[in-house]
Amino acid sequence: MTVTDRRWRVAAMPDEQLDSSHFELVPADRPEVSDGEVGCRVLWISIDAAQRAWFQGVSYRGALNIGDTMPAFCIGQVVESRSDDFAPGDIVTGHLGWQDYGVVDAEELTGIEVKAPLSRYLSVLGITGITAYFGLFDVGDVKSGETVVVSGAAGATGSLVGQMAKLRGCRVVGICGSAEKQEWLTSKLGFDAAVNYRDENFRTALKEACPDGIDVFFDNVGGTTLDTALGRMAYRGRVVCCGVVSQYDTTTPSRGARGVPGVLIGKSITMRGFLYTDYSDRFDEALQALQGWIEQGSLTVAEDILEGLEKAPEGLIGVLNGTNVGKRMIHVADPS
Amino acid sequence: MTVTDRRWRVAAMPDEQLDSSHFELVPADRPEVSDGEVGCRVLWISIDAAQRAWFQGVSYRGALNIGDTMPAFCIGQVVESRSDDFAPGDIVTGHLGWQDYGVVDAEELTGIEVKAPLSRYLSVLGITGITAYFGLFDVGDVKSGETVVVSGAAGATGSLVGQMAKLRGCRVVGICGSAEKQEWLTSKLGFDAAVNYRDENFRTALKEACPDGIDVFFDNVGGTTLDTALGRMAYRGRVVCCGVVSQYDTTTPSRGARGVPGVLIGKSITMRGFLYTDYSDRFDEALQALQGWIEQGSLTVAEDILEGLEKAPEGLIGVLNGTNVGKRMIHVADPS
Repeated sequence: MTVTDRRWRVAAMPDEQLDSSHFELVPADRPEVSDGEVGCRVLWISIDAAQRAWFQGVSYRGALNIGDTMPAFCIGQVVESRSDDFAPGDIVTGHLGWQDYGVVDAEELTGIEVKAPLSRYLSVLGITGITAYFGLFDVGDVKSGETVVVSGAAGATGSLVGQMAKLRGCRVVGICGSAEKQEWLTSKLGFDAAVNYRDENFRTALKEACPDGIDVFFDNVGGTTLDTALGRMAYRGRVVCCGVVSQYDTTTPSRGARGVPGVLIGKSITMRGFLYTDYSDRFDEALQALQGWIEQGSLTVAEDILEGLEKAPEGLIGVLNGTNVGKRMIHVADPS
Repeated sequence: MTVTDRRWRVAAMPDEQLDSSHFELVPADRPEVSDGEVGCRVLWISIDAAQRAWFQGVSYRGALNIGDTMPAFCIGQVVESRSDDFAPGDIVTGHLGWQDYGVVDAEELTGIEVKAPLSRYLSVLGITGITAYFGLFDVGDVKSGETVVVSGAAGATGSLVGQMAKLRGCRVVGICGSAEKQEWLTSKLGFDAAVNYRDENFRTALKEACPDGIDVFFDNVGGTTLDTALGRMAYRGRVVCCGVVSQYDTTTPSRGARGVPGVLIGKSITMRGFLYTDYSDRFDEALQALQGWIEQGSLTVAEDILEGLEKAPEGLIGVLNGTNVGKRMIHVADPS
C-alpha cells in the first residue's frame, strides 16, 4: 500500500526577500528504499539562515531549483533500512529535508546515542554548538581577558559563543536587533553589554562598549555590521567569519567588506572563514566540553521551537528577519 | 655658517592620480641638532607605493599635509650626533625623508654594520626582504608543493616572495602588468608561470596557471586582482594581505574585496594583514636566511635605482604605474 506523506517543494525562486509564496506543501508518495539506503521519519527540522543562501547558488552547497524538496538538516527515526549500519527505530541526523519522510544513502546519516532531549542534537549538542566551539576557540583563538564581540548574538550560534567567551574569562559584547534581545543577552546570558545594530547610534554604542577595541569579532551577519566592527578591531584582532545572514535574503548582496584588505594590513588583522566540517575529526572534543558545561549549569540553552511541518517556511522567513531567540527548529513528530 | 640643502615638500594634495605638481624641491637650511638627536646626510631613499597612501590619511601612518617634507625610509650617514648611540660616519637607517639632510631622534635610527652594497639594506636585507620572508613563511604558512600566487610579482617584495616560494618547493605563479615582466619572471627568476592582469583573458589565464587552485595568495595590490584571485582559492587557502597598490593612487578607493566574507566561509579561507614591524623581535632570523640564499646564489636581487634626489617624485609616480622592476630607490649620495 502506498503511504502518502507531505513535503515542502520550492514553488518559485525568490527575487528579493523570501516569502511563503516560494514554497508549496504537497503530498508525496513514500519512495521505495533501495540497496544501501535508509528511509526515515522526520522528527525535527533545523532552520538555518544559510538555507536562504542555497537559493543563491553561491554557497558551499549547490543551488536549489523549482520542484526540489527544500533541504534541511534533521533528526529522524529509521523506519526502513537496507543498510547494515542502521535498523528500524534508530535515531539519526542527516539532510532529510522539509518533509515527513526522507530516503537517503546510509552514508549520509549519523546515528545518535540519545542521552538528552532530542532537540539538543540540533542546538548545543549539534552543528550549532560545534560551530560555536571551534569558531571561538580555534578560528578565533580567543584568550582570557580579551574583548569578544558577537553579531547575531541572540541567534543559535551567537548565544552560545557569547556564553562560552564569558566562561573563558572574556569581556563579551553582543550585537542584536531589538531592545528585548539586548535585555535578554545581558540579564539572562551574562553578556557584559549588548548593542542594537538598528539603533541610529550603533557605531558609537559599539565603540563605547569596546573601549580597548575588539580582539575577536565572531561574525554571523556580514554587511554593515561587519563594516562597523572592522573599524573597531584592536591590533592583531581576529574576525571569525561564520555567516552572512544580512546578505542571504537578497539577490543583490553587498559587494564586500568595506576597506578589506587595507584595514587588515593597518592593524595586522586576521579574517578567517570556516565550516564546522573543517573539524570533523574533533567533534568529540567539542561535544564533551559542551556536555560538561550543560551538566554544570554554565550554559543556557536557548531553543526556539515551532510546532508542525507546516510551520517550516514561516520559521525560515522569521530567522531571516531576526524573530528567533536561540536555535530555531521545527518539531514534526515524536519518535515511536 | 648656515648650510643649505634641498628637500621635497608636499606642494598640493592629490585629488586623483599623483603627479609632479604635488611636490616642490625647495632649499632647506640645515637644522640644528638638539640633545638626543642625530643629523644625517641622506644616501639612499626607499621608494614605496605605500608612500602614496600616506596622502590618504588612512594608513598605519598619520596623514601628510601641505608643506611637510615628504617622508621616506632611508639610508643615511651620521654627520652630527648628540646621542651616545651614534657617532659621525656611522651608517644608519631611518625615516629621514626626501631630502639631502635629516635630523631625527636617535631612537628612530638603526645602525647598520655594512657587509654588502648599501642598496641591499633597502632591498633584500631591509624591510622588503623581511616583509617578503615573514609574509610568505609566517603569515602565509606556505608548505612545499603548494601553489603560490603573488601579485605585484615584478615589484620589490613580489620578486623576492616568488623566488623564496620556489626555494620552498612550491609551484609559483606571478601576476604582473606587462609582457616584459612576464618574460622576466619566468626566464630570470624561475617562476613557473606569469600572467598579466591587464590582459583581457586574465581570469582564464590565472585559472589555467593554477589548475588545483591557489593555496597561498601573496597580495601586494588589492582591487580587481584580489577579487579575481579570491575566486580561485583552494580549500583552506591563505591570502597574505601585504599591500593595496591598486588603491593608493586615488581618493576614491574600491569599497572592499568582492564577496568577503562569504567567499572566505565557503572555502575556509584565511585573509591576514600584517606589517613587518609585527616581527621586530625576529628580524635576525629573516636576515640570516636571506643572507644565506644570497651567498648561495639562490636569490636574484632586483634593484631599480634612479640617480639623484631630484628623481624622487618621478620614482614614486613610476612605482604607482608599475614602471619599476624590483626594488625602486633613489641614490642621493655616497658615504664619505
